[in-house]
Amino acid sequence: MSAGDTAGSGPALTIAIAGATGVVGGAVRDILEERGFPVGELRLLASERSAGRRLPFRGSDVEVQVLDDDSFYGVDLAFFACGGDASRRFAPVAAAAGATVIDKSSVFRQEPGIPLVVPEVNPAALDAHQGIVATPNCSTIQMVVALKPIYDAAGIERVVVSTYQAVTGSGKKGPDELLRQAPQVLAGEPVECTAYPHQIAFNLLPHIDSFLPSGLTKEEQKMVDETQKIFDDPDLKVSPTCVRVPVVNAHSEAVNVQTRRKLGAAEARELLAAAPGVVVVDDPASLQYPMPIDASGKDPVYVGRIRDDDSIENGLSFWCVSDNLRKGAALNAVQIAEELVRRGALAPAK
Amino acid sequence: MSAGDTAGSGPALTIAIAGATGVVGGAVRDILEERGFPVGELRLLASERSAGRRLPFRGSDVEVQVLDDDSFYGVDLAFFACGGDASRRFAPVAAAAGATVIDKSSVFRQEPGIPLVVPEVNPAALDAHQGIVATPNCSTIQMVVALKPIYDAAGIERVVVSTYQAVTGSGKKGPDELLRQAPQVLAGEPVECTAYPHQIAFNLLPHIDSFLPSGLTKEEQKMVDETQKIFDDPDLKVSPTCVRVPVVNAHSEAVNVQTRRKLGAAEARELLAAAPGVVVVDDPASLQYPMPIDASGKDPVYVGRIRDDDSIENGLSFWCVSDNLRKGAALNAVQIAEELVRRGALAPAK
Repeated sequence: MSAGDTAGSGPALTIAIAGATGVVGGAVRDILEERGFPVGELRLLASERSAGRRLPFRGSDVEVQVLDDDSFYGVDLAFFACGGDASRRFAPVAAAAGATVIDKSSVFRQEPGIPLVVPEVNPAALDAHQGIVATPNCSTIQMVVALKPIYDAAGIERVVVSTYQAVTGSGKKGPDELLRQAPQVLAGEPVECTAYPHQIAFNLLPHIDSFLPSGLTKEEQKMVDETQKIFDDPDLKVSPTCVRVPVVNAHSEAVNVQTRRKLGAAEARELLAAAPGVVVVDDPASLQYPMPIDASGKDPVYVGRIRDDDSIENGLSFWCVSDNLRKGAALNAVQIAEELVRRGALAPAK
Repeated sequence: MSAGDTAGSGPALTIAIAGATGVVGGAVRDILEERGFPVGELRLLASERSAGRRLPFRGSDVEVQVLDDDSFYGVDLAFFACGGDASRRFAPVAAAAGATVIDKSSVFRQEPGIPLVVPEVNPAALDAHQGIVATPNCSTIQMVVALKPIYDAAGIERVVVSTYQAVTGSGKKGPDELLRQAPQVLAGEPVECTAYPHQIAFNLLPHIDSFLPSGLTKEEQKMVDETQKIFDDPDLKVSPTCVRVPVVNAHSEAVNVQTRRKLGAAEARELLAAAPGVVVVDDPASLQYPMPIDASGKDPVYVGRIRDDDSIENGLSFWCVSDNLRKGAALNAVQIAEELVRRGALAPAK
């Protein structure tokens, strides 16, 4: 437990992180410190296996406690960065104890009455929360941040998106596997596959999360459902293909948009350059475009390769890259917390 | 020079390979031998720098000669697997000497009167050749092979395609760079970029070939123009994004199609399974889908993830993977040669 001084403005809050020893939980802790979020007490929660570990926060060490029914007494804000099962079990417990939960799992995202929020896109949805707020899937978040200025200016009929998703999207076991397999492949040795069903080093897997009867993967279905919920627009059509690529960190997406009204590439570039959370990197003449090695560790959604698509009326294409652990997960969760504080919406709506 | 016996049927032909010491030239030589093409004499041609090297063919060594104006006397069929400049300079020389040229460069592909051929798709276009036949770009070839049965059954309105292209598409320097950079990145050392403008190991480059004023790359524009020419259908719309990925060999593509008439995924799967050059690998329940490490070194275009796309009327999506050096280049060229022989179309049309 740490009771350091509040680094930000506003009253210091008691914050819990469930899943504190995971990749995303660790990133939440780092980002709370980086951004000077007004943390009074920090409770790091994890399974019994990880309890007792000490993790740094603002120059002190905080001991990891076991996540259980008594973890949330006095907590103002609880970040859930654990698996879906733990979220399903403990998020309602935390909310009942008076904490506002920001949950990164997929279990609550489609529940009516639970806001699914990307602060650059639909912050007002936070005002109606009843104790639990869901943060979207990584592949959805970066896409909707880039789509938002386009949607506002011209409406969106349909999006066709192909993803190029990094292995950190699978948690720590993803990069462990890629970085273990890569030297084995280079040495001509056989590889062992545990995190993924097939070799990921120097290979591609058109398969993220499990398959649905429709032939889509759950990851792809999330991109459809979450995008519609975030924009509150069931007529916004999304056609996704999600692919795992041998990149350590930062997801990339080739996005093709049909807008409702014509929006030229030049205008789209201007709108994107002015959009919150977006950085345009789009200078083909000097070979500048977004790449995962540049986006990893950074906050923005980088957008480039912005161009007219003459294959359809009102067509527009772009390429976007963002750190899936930061904007795709931990940063978005912390930004939701900041927005809750800013709106005075930390307590559930009446 | 080799004057081995003819392995196939039909009269033995005098064959030249210009660019014989390159990756594609080498693959043409291998595939001619594998498929028992009726080679009487084989002339291996390259720049002065490579002349004198000896390369194996059917158990003998063939000495590489300098590619010059006198190289094509008595040649029946000349494979050009060199750069665009050498094709522009020497393909007309070869044709004037009486050879039929099969050229893999992009310089003749859009010329009226020069057939651009994928034998599974538009073999009849060969009948009108005037001495030069062009073979399409690798990323186009595998896509049109997969699109062909769909096009024939239901028509195609528009294709949105995102590519995941392997480094062998850049010639020998591509894998050299990836395999040199990968251990450097793993060791935390700085990498040197020579084949590509940015690091390719554990990274993605949304950039293949040079940029056009439209914002498309030449690689992307080729996918548009070549697909239309091969299907002889200027109304077939193509919206491509081409991306280089850290995979050694075999290109992958996420393809979204709007057909003219409804074609369900089940019917598309049946049509694809029966299509020449296509192997369907599409069993999500047992986690079977096409992957580059499986396709590398093989002949077919592998198609999987075949599914309805409900985001649009008559929508269909699939994922296809093929060896860009074989079907994407050398194999397609040899298949063109076989088709010319089969049709009795080796000599130019009158």
